[in-house]
Amino acid sequence: MISELCKLPSIGRKTAQRLAFHLLKAPEEDARALAQAIGELQDLIRFCRDCFNLSDAELCPVCTDPRRDRSVLCIVEEASNLIAIERTGSFQGLYHVLGGALSPLKDIGPERLHIRELMERLGSSEFQEIILATNPDVEGEATAVYLSRLIQPLGLRTTRLAQGLPAGSDLEYTDDLTLTRALEGRRSY
Amino acid sequence: MISELCKLPSIGRKTAQRLAFHLLKAPEEDARALAQAIGELQDLIRFCRDCFNLSDAELCPVCTDPRRDRSVLCIVEEASNLIAIERTGSFQGLYHVLGGALSPLKDIGPERLHIRELMERLGSSEFQEIILATNPDVEGEATAVYLSRLIQPLGLRTTRLAQGLPAGSDLEYTDDLTLTRALEGRRSY
Repeated sequence: MISELCKLPSIGRKTAQRLAFHLLKAPEEDARALAQAIGELQDLIRFCRDCFNLSDAELCPVCTDPRRDRSVLCIVEEASNLIAIERTGSFQGLYHVLGGALSPLKDIGPERLHIRELMERLGSSEFQEIILATNPDVEGEATAVYLSRLIQPLGLRTTRLAQGLPAGSDLEYTDDLTLTRALEGRRSY
Repeated sequence: MISELCKLPSIGRKTAQRLAFHLLKAPEEDARALAQAIGELQDLIRFCRDCFNLSDAELCPVCTDPRRDRSVLCIVEEASNLIAIERTGSFQGLYHVLGGALSPLKDIGPERLHIRELMERLGSSEFQEIILATNPDVEGEATAVYLSRLIQPLGLRTTRLAQGLPAGSDLEYTDDLTLTRALEGRRSY
């Protein structure tokens, strides 16, 4: 059991040992409940048919929610990014999870991401704006540029999340690239 | 000497003691040079007459540089922020250092900042755009709003540094307010 726990991220041999001894002393129903949850995880959780969000049904709760704005689509790399945006409560549209970002170094090309499904979805929907919400790093930027070239011929408005100063920060401690982007992207009052 | 060193920020009694013993053993000319530099500091460094940047002459190097773009003015809180923007090399205009931000809690009102001098400067110059580059925190935002209301009747374009995702960051680890601002400020491709 300790060697299985060691395979998990950020759990080393000592932590694994501590967890194992804890479970040994824990009430039997607790240990059994955890074992069952882990065992059922891969059976119960699957990907939403439309947006590839994590879901326990064919469609995820976002896709089935009638109150969502079906004219805006937000494209993210991973389901964890979707969760981050949902947490803000400031986006009401739908999502599309790519399952990663383009990366020649990691040998991830367009065919390894849910891009074919995205294009099919765009062809048969009433979206008016596509927000490219990939991460503001090299791979995320490359993926956004690649997608914008695919999407623009469809006549849809494509936008990119703003880059600039994080809220509550101080210019003095902001890295040069972020400060340059904040200057370039300055907005009129 | 140790008690004088203790008055400096981030220097406690132990560090002060270490510095003092170091200077005791250092070559005499080193100690003397440091003493002279500290002694002359307040005589030599003054504020630029026009922009209140730190300077060793009546006008600072930015204000006297003939290659700077005299149609754009960037308003910052402190000289340290001016230095941060200069370091990026992506701004060619002139600056105005306020000397702080409005703060009712710290009892800093408009009369304690270089706002009167700013308005005089705007009245007699050929600026076309004023960039409000105060920090993206509560006090900096309030100062930017206050200044934009003063400046807009003059018919000048006022802009604000972009807020959003810092370069190289990950959506998953971005705070909610920054992510909300990045969504609100999204830009068309």
